[in-house]
Formats: sequence, C-alpha cells, structure tokens
Amino acid sequence: MFAEIITIGDEILIGQIVDTNSAFLGKQLNKIGVEVIQITSIRDDQEVIVKALEDAETRADIIITTGGLGPTKDDLTKHTLCAYFNDELVMDQKTLEHIEDIFAKYISHPILEANRSQANLPSKCIALQNKYGTAPGMWFEKDEKVFVSLPGVPFEMKAIVANEMIPRLKDRYNRPFIVHKTVLTYGLGESAIADRIQEWEDNLPDAIKLAYLPNLGRVRLRLTGRGNDESVLIETINNEVDKLHHYIGDIIKGYEDENSIEEQIAHWLTEQELTISTAESCTGGRLASVFTSVPGASAFFKGSIVSYATSAKHDVLKIDQDLIDNYSVVSAEITSEMARRAREMFNSDIAVATTGNAGPTKGDSDAEIGTVFIAIADANGIVVEKFNFGNHRERVTQKAVNKSLEMVFNMISETKNGK
Amino acid sequence: MFAEIITIGDEILIGQIVDTNSAFLGKQLNKIGVEVIQITSIRDDQEVIVKALEDAETRADIIITTGGLGPTKDDLTKHTLCAYFNDELVMDQKTLEHIEDIFAKYISHPILEANRSQANLPSKCIALQNKYGTAPGMWFEKDEKVFVSLPGVPFEMKAIVANEMIPRLKDRYNRPFIVHKTVLTYGLGESAIADRIQEWEDNLPDAIKLAYLPNLGRVRLRLTGRGNDESVLIETINNEVDKLHHYIGDIIKGYEDENSIEEQIAHWLTEQELTISTAESCTGGRLASVFTSVPGASAFFKGSIVSYATSAKHDVLKIDQDLIDNYSVVSAEITSEMARRAREMFNSDIAVATTGNAGPTKGDSDAEIGTVFIAIADANGIVVEKFNFGNHRERVTQKAVNKSLEMVFNMISETKNGK
Repeated sequence: MFAEIITIGDEILIGQIVDTNSAFLGKQLNKIGVEVIQITSIRDDQEVIVKALEDAETRADIIITTGGLGPTKDDLTKHTLCAYFNDELVMDQKTLEHIEDIFAKYISHPILEANRSQANLPSKCIALQNKYGTAPGMWFEKDEKVFVSLPGVPFEMKAIVANEMIPRLKDRYNRPFIVHKTVLTYGLGESAIADRIQEWEDNLPDAIKLAYLPNLGRVRLRLTGRGNDESVLIETINNEVDKLHHYIGDIIKGYEDENSIEEQIAHWLTEQELTISTAESCTGGRLASVFTSVPGASAFFKGSIVSYATSAKHDVLKIDQDLIDNYSVVSAEITSEMARRAREMFNSDIAVATTGNAGPTKGDSDAEIGTVFIAIADANGIVVEKFNFGNHRERVTQKAVNKSLEMVFNMISETKNGK
Repeated sequence: MFAEIITIGDEILIGQIVDTNSAFLGKQLNKIGVEVIQITSIRDDQEVIVKALEDAETRADIIITTGGLGPTKDDLTKHTLCAYFNDELVMDQKTLEHIEDIFAKYISHPILEANRSQANLPSKCIALQNKYGTAPGMWFEKDEKVFVSLPGVPFEMKAIVANEMIPRLKDRYNRPFIVHKTVLTYGLGESAIADRIQEWEDNLPDAIKLAYLPNLGRVRLRLTGRGNDESVLIETINNEVDKLHHYIGDIIKGYEDENSIEEQIAHWLTEQELTISTAESCTGGRLASVFTSVPGASAFFKGSIVSYATSAKHDVLKIDQDLIDNYSVVSAEITSEMARRAREMFNSDIAVATTGNAGPTKGDSDAEIGTVFIAIADANGIVVEKFNFGNHRERVTQKAVNKSLEMVFNMISETKNGK
C-alpha cells in the first residue's frame, strides 16, 4: 500500500515556511501500514498540479495533496481537481453551515462571498470536516485509487487527518503491518558502529531493513519490518535487537518510544508525584519550553529561572558573588549552585541547571566555546558533568538540551531499576 | 534559471525528521535569483534516484540533492551518481587529509576504512569542502546543467552551501533579479483582505506576483517581482505597496525584514543599550528561548522567570498571595505584577509577562481556555492586554509568543517615532 504526498504552494519552494505537514502525514500513514514513497512540493499552477497528480497516480495507491485551499485568488487547487476528475463545483449545505457557524462564533468581521464559496465542492468528493477552519478536506475515489485534498494550515490539516482521513483509510484497505524499532546509541559514530555490527547486518532477515540515523552526538538504528503477521514481525525484530546487544550492548542506551523523551520523563514524574524545575543559562529557556510543551505539564513542572546575564545569577538566583568571581559563570561549581538554588526556590524534587558558552564570542567567561556544564540536583545530592559540543551556536544549545533530557532520563531509569 | 531539490532518505518519508534543508536551500537560491520549481523527497534506492535525476533534468537547470552521503551501507548516492554520469570513484587526496584531520582533532575512536572511503569521489566532480564533517559536497556539470550533491546533516549542508555552492553558482550563471517585499497585516482574514484589495490586485503589473500567507492571526502579503533590472523592480514593487496603503493602510503593520522580528528587537535594544527580561507562565520559556536564539543576546537579554506552577508566582516572583487569591493567576492584575517584578528582579529596562490558559484543561484558574494576558513594563509604567487565542494548546502558546513580540516591537516603533 503506497502513498504519495503533494504539497502545493510557492511558500515552501522559496523557503518561507518549512514543510512540517509532510512529516506529520508520513508518521500517521506509517502507523497504519501505509508506506509514503514520495513527497513532491510544487507551484500553485494548474498544469503543474495536474502533471504531479498524473505522475503520482502511476506509482501510488493513495495520493494526498496539502495546501491551495484558502479563499483567495492564488488558490487554484479546487478548480484543478474538478478538471482532473471531470467534475463541477456544487454547494455543500453542511459545509456552508459550518463556515457560517465559525464566523458567528470566532470572527468579528462579516462573512463574505469568498468565504461562503469555500462550501462549493466538487460533486464527486466526500467533504472531510475541518473542525478548526473554513476549508474542508476532500476525498475522491477513481480507478481503485484514493485522492485526498487537505488544507495547508497545519493544525487544521492535522485534525482532519486524525478525525476523518485515517479512519476512512483504515476502513477502505487491508494493509500489511509495518513495525519499527529504533535503538538509541550514544558514543560512537555511524561508521564505527557499522564496522562492529557488520556480521549482524549481513545476516538480517529479508523482511527487516536497517537505517542509520546520526544526529548530534547519537546514532539511532532503525529496524523496519513489513509483513502480514504483526506478532511474527515484532518477534523477529526483538530477536534481532537481542542479537545486536552482543555487538554493541555497551553503547545502546534504550529504544525510541512512540513518545518523546520529554513525554516519558513527564509521564514518570506525574506518576511518582515528583516535580522538576530548571535554572538555565546557555539553554536560554528551551529546556523549560520542552517540558511545558507536554500537555498536563503543570502536574510536574514548577518553573525555570533563565539567568542569562551574569548579574541575574546573583540578583535572581542569589548565588554568592564571591563564588561567581572565584569560579567564573561557566564552571561546575556555579552550575551545581544554580541547580541547588532552583530546587530550593521552586521547592521542586529535582532541578536541572545548564551553563555554557555557545559562541560565537566568548562572553563573560574564559571557557572555550562549546563548553557546557549540566547539573542535576535531587534529594540525594547534586551531579554535574562537563561537555564540549563544538563551535556551532545553534548546535551547542540543542545538544545541551538533548543531553540534559538524557541525564534526567538516565537518572529516572536508574531509580526505576533500583540502583 | 530554475532549480530542483531532491532529498534522499527514508527518514523524511516516514516522518522521522522534518525537511528543513529544502527551506534553507530555497531561501538561499531565491536570494541569488534562482527559482526553485520543485522539491522531491524520495527513497534511498538507486533506480528511484536515477529516475528523479532524469525527471528533474527535463525541467530545471540546477539539480541539487541532499542526503545519502554518510559512510554506511544505506547510503547509495555516490555510486548512483557514478552510474548516472558514467563515472568511477577515485581517491581525492585533499578530502582524505581533511577527514584524517577531523578524526585527529574531534573524534576519540580510531579512523576506519569506511571513513577513509568517504574521500573516494567520482572523477568528474569538483569536491566542495565540508568544514564541519567528513562527507564532501560534489559539483557536476553535464549538458549545460549543474548537479550538486550535498550531505543531509543540516549544519554541514548549510556551510557547504554558503561557502562553496552559492559562490560557484553566482560565477557560473547570469541570473535575473528576484525581488520580494512582504507586507505584514494584522486584524483581517485573507478573504476580507482580498475583497478590499481586489481592484488593486487586478491592476498589478505582469512582472509582479501576489501571494497571501495567512498564519496565526496575521496575513502576510508577498509581492514577488522578476526581471533584469533590479532598480526598476524595486521601484515598481514600492510603488505598488504605496498604492496598497490606500486600500488597507489601517491593517498594515510593517514589512517583513530580512531579519526576524526578534532580531529587529535585539538590534534596537542593543543599539539603545536597553535590556529586557520576561516572566512567563503560559509561554513556558519560549519567549526567553526566542530572545536567546539571537547571537549576542547577552547584550540585551537579562533572563526570565518561568513561573509555571501557581506556587512559583509567590515563591519565586514574590507576588503577594492575597493578590493571587483575589484576582486568580490568569488576570490583568497578576500579569502586570509579574512584569513589574521581573523588571525589578532582573533590573532590566523592559519586562514582558504572559499568563493564560492554553488548555486542554482549565488548570488553576477559571479563565476560559485560550485566554491570554500579556503585560509590558517599562520606565513609563505597565500596559496589559487580554486576548483569546482559541482552543488549540500549541497554537495558543505560539500566538502568545508572536503577540508578545509584536507588542514589544510596536512599543519600540512608537518610541522611535517619538510618540
């Protein structure tokens, strides 16, 4: 069962927006055993859209377009779909009522003809309700193939996919199972890993595919299995992962969950009724924003002090000025003290602190660019570690966030395992 | 001058990563007058790659691939390129020395044959030096067309593009000029705007194209001009924007700069030697992370207190408990107090505070989901505004961040204009 995604609109091509929609669609389709084999971003031009649909139809069973469904002139998709399916637009009463309802509830200026005309849909399509917006999705069937047209606004598109598209695809098709398992490794580069696991890789069963996904200090190994019996697939993959431990057990740090690392931390803290806070210098609030991005964060996240300026470490965190003068702001001592103070001030069970120098210039410290200290304080005391994350500002910050999450996650795992 | 981008690798297709590389490439190419007409994401499969290259060659002058250049088995690109250009791999001495140098400096485990073999390049290509990694870019020319192959790791790719690819493209081609001007509007939806500017839009010169880019409470109108005389293009676009003011002058809030709104704020604060701090509840540290993402942030950003838990508003921000009990945490009074306290604690010239209820549940407040208060404190006092950003958690938070930046930006603009 193959799918292709076509994104329509100049804004992706000129780089004004990043295409996050396709990643979302890829993930959701994969979960139900539909494999995305191509993503194509094209201009909002009738001839180009028709050609892209024709090409996709030769390769895929399911063709999904996003974008090009707004009420204004630069949006040609609906008329193009009519031409493609030899169809005409007719007013869809239910969609019209939904549009009028949205205007009555949320929009202060009056409804216009252009808004009402969003309810004009090709007669052959099934309208997919857009809970959050005025442009509905559309579902077409032609020669055993399914075409779905979705609006480009991410949160509107996501809701239509979850509530309308995925359930319909599940009903429509018998799908093979796709099972992924992603092994997290830290400490070796991809070629060093490849070297150590060559024998294992050469002997992988045909149904199992391996991919190396290197990213900022870790390499994820993704095993993918396809087949008609889910339990056999899972068993085969687990079996291969067991064997993998003989080769690189020392660098395997866990498995990538359906859930992100912050969601796993959130889940455990909430379950244990524990709370966390942060004191951030080089990560500048990103660690807090990662924790607060989890729904229900107020159950476990107390808050953060972003002590970005050196003065804030004394003024707000109340760290002894002598200590700062003696050790400098980028030091194990000050980072530990930040964690200790955050835990105290927020009255949290755990606190994480980061300091460092992300570059491009050295700032208020002699520490080499890329130096980062991370400290974690809990009831047992404080641990602090020093890293060098290189000379690329954005990368240093992101690595510091990743490493902080990893350290919290490891601490939790050790607690779980009763160490 | 047309370009196409081909991204190679399963991780984009299964949604494991978002394709940020293409947006970067689109922007950089656009700046030098090269128009990206298609982006295609495909599997790491020799036959599929060859087909994609062939197709792209029929439409574009410049074909850029990213991904598929790691040292491990799932990377077939280099061999595919040899097949495509009827070429063979030969050792490139300069690249080999660079790889050995990187290993000697940054990598603790020994160099392997797989790493050294990254210096084996097709004999017909020019190697593009990869400052941050071991896989060089490759530049091919064939029948007046240019093919560039780049590694998929974003920071490696970006450096090669900036230092090697763009300068070579500039040398190689005479390009038409592309001029963009993006008008920022707030307060009306895209169809309402379209209705008001219809006459203007109908009379736009042929060389100028208009696109509507709606996003979370604002609609950007992007004018794009193409031609051989840059100064004529700029004049034509400015002229059209002047005319546009007659139609929607009341909702035009400025123009999209090359620089982001936070960079513009950063620039002005640094120039005026002013500092800012934040106290964040519903934005959970995102506002701080936006400010600290600007290089040189320590010149103007003092820090943030993320008082996410209700207790943190009293424990850390030291807001009077009676005040919290009387007004509730999501209120104009508490938000103002947060801004006032942040300004005091961080000793900053300006402070921004956010509170609100992003959902999905109501939390420690009776405020309706979507309610957000934003306050700004400076030497003249405190202003506070109330908003409702709807019922979608992620969107409420992002809108609160955008609106906070907009309010700071407006305050600065008023100061500049001497109001």
